Amino acid sequence: MSLLVVGTVAFDAIETPFGKTDKILGGAATYISLAASYFTKDIDLVSVVGGDYPQSAIDMLKSHGMRLDGLQIKQDQKSFFWSGRYHTDLNSRDTLATELNVLADFDPILPEHTRNCDFLMLGNLMPKLQQRVMEQLTRRPKLIVLDTMNFWMDTAFDDLVKAISQVDVLTINDSEARQLSGEYSLVKAAQKILEMGPKVLIIKKGEHGALLFNKEQVFFAPALPLEDVFDPTGAGDSFAGGFIGYLAQTKDISFDNMKRAIIFGSAMASFTVEKFGVERLVGLSQEEVEERVQEFIDLVQFDISLV
Amino acid sequence: MSLLVVGTVAFDAIETPFGKTDKILGGAATYISLAASYFTKDIDLVSVVGGDYPQSAIDMLKSHGMRLDGLQIKQDQKSFFWSGRYHTDLNSRDTLATELNVLADFDPILPEHTRNCDFLMLGNLMPKLQQRVMEQLTRRPKLIVLDTMNFWMDTAFDDLVKAISQVDVLTINDSEARQLSGEYSLVKAAQKILEMGPKVLIIKKGEHGALLFNKEQVFFAPALPLEDVFDPTGAGDSFAGGFIGYLAQTKDISFDNMKRAIIFGSAMASFTVEKFGVERLVGLSQEEVEERVQEFIDLVQFDISLV
Repeated sequence: MSLLVVGTVAFDAIETPFGKTDKILGGAATYISLAASYFTKDIDLVSVVGGDYPQSAIDMLKSHGMRLDGLQIKQDQKSFFWSGRYHTDLNSRDTLATELNVLADFDPILPEHTRNCDFLMLGNLMPKLQQRVMEQLTRRPKLIVLDTMNFWMDTAFDDLVKAISQVDVLTINDSEARQLSGEYSLVKAAQKILEMGPKVLIIKKGEHGALLFNKEQVFFAPALPLEDVFDPTGAGDSFAGGFIGYLAQTKDISFDNMKRAIIFGSAMASFTVEKFGVERLVGLSQEEVEERVQEFIDLVQFDISLV
Repeated sequence: MSLLVVGTVAFDAIETPFGKTDKILGGAATYISLAASYFTKDIDLVSVVGGDYPQSAIDMLKSHGMRLDGLQIKQDQKSFFWSGRYHTDLNSRDTLATELNVLADFDPILPEHTRNCDFLMLGNLMPKLQQRVMEQLTRRPKLIVLDTMNFWMDTAFDDLVKAISQVDVLTINDSEARQLSGEYSLVKAAQKILEMGPKVLIIKKGEHGALLFNKEQVFFAPALPLEDVFDPTGAGDSFAGGFIGYLAQTKDISFDNMKRAIIFGSAMASFTVEKFGVERLVGLSQEEVEERVQEFIDLVQFDISLV
């Protein structure tokens, strides 16, 4: 089924304890759509870049099956740029530079054929823009997933709450769930957030896995213990992309299928962190993806028969 | 099969964000043997207390099936006492008081009938004392599990490494695994530690679950997301007690059975943190334990068929 991905397509410059990069491809929508492309080729990408965005990157996205009619190219401007330095534990980072450039006055205009998409993934973006996307839909998608971050809780809380109230699935990390709800216990936080509108909440805990909540059930997906986490940038977006890509492929939005989707999302995130940027996420084989998912199955599978 | 538990039996005074206690029952061996008692009644407890240790506590331990021939009572001395205050996140704490009392010159003497025990659980204790216990064995148990902490890595490293080299299973937390191995990656840390002697390593991550490693395999058990964690004291010991208790009950030390055992251990820990001290761990019904284990099954169970 058709998947519409809206979010940033950008350049990043990243420093980790293992090395540093020049400007490389980044942006939430890049990771989301690449991860989703292993599950469906029926993807539209809506975003904005500047004249500095290379044709090779556009070709790479197209080779993964994305339709780019909705990718605005502002020839006389520069692409969004973010630079950050990760600390030794890779769980925290300093932002070194944020240059909005084309993002400063981005108006996400949906191509006509995407306005009745089946699945919509709203990557992390100003909440008003996420709402602007939803306003252009001509029918309610089967599923709308929204990702956001603490920055918008600090600077655009009311807009964010309004956007959240309109979606089916919200994905945020553990500290953001605490901030949004005012509850320290993630179980209590989830209950409060689910009263704000979404039917499903995913709390991402990085190397500690992810929790999937609806009002009655909870499911936990681990992160794969890796020998080396090289660069965590894009892990959450790859997770979201694998999640919604799998749902779009299987056309099943039941809680049981979301459990599977969260495992596929975790698998995609585990690839992303193994190299800088999108390097590992480009050109994976179907076999690599399935082997990785099998590692998740082996990691948590046990057999207890209670009498 | 017979289980010998060696460790502290003590008084604690605990402050958490939710309240504070006077002197209550504590000590690693108390939690371990109580948790194990839900799986086997063939348990000997070797420890030391002072004349201040109440008959009611001894009666409680006996009512859980423990044999106390090895519990030394020093009538003219006081029991080991620890006092601590947990921070808001419950993941860190300050020690307010440590009074060794009877522990200062504790010599763990194994009653004759325990020297050929089938399972041995060495609770956190000075590594020389853990070795002293192993020296008294008249045959190698089917399984020896050792728990320890960073304090001994700081103050008795060589003794600790020697003790570790003699056991089958080592249980430590994530920061201790990093300290012991000098590796940040838990996968690399596990590989190094398994070269120090143990066949199996369990890395406890508190609210983030636990990892079980042998040289070829890894298994992850989640912690149950709880509405409220009230008092984390004794969670790791309850986990270890449930783990070894289940193994002693089932007489099977295969990796697959250890996966089950770690889930039962996690279930016992999830009870402990719901109230102060051992309050929740005393007098559970078999039904409560099974219901809790079912919650763990529901939490991580998914069904993916790869073609």
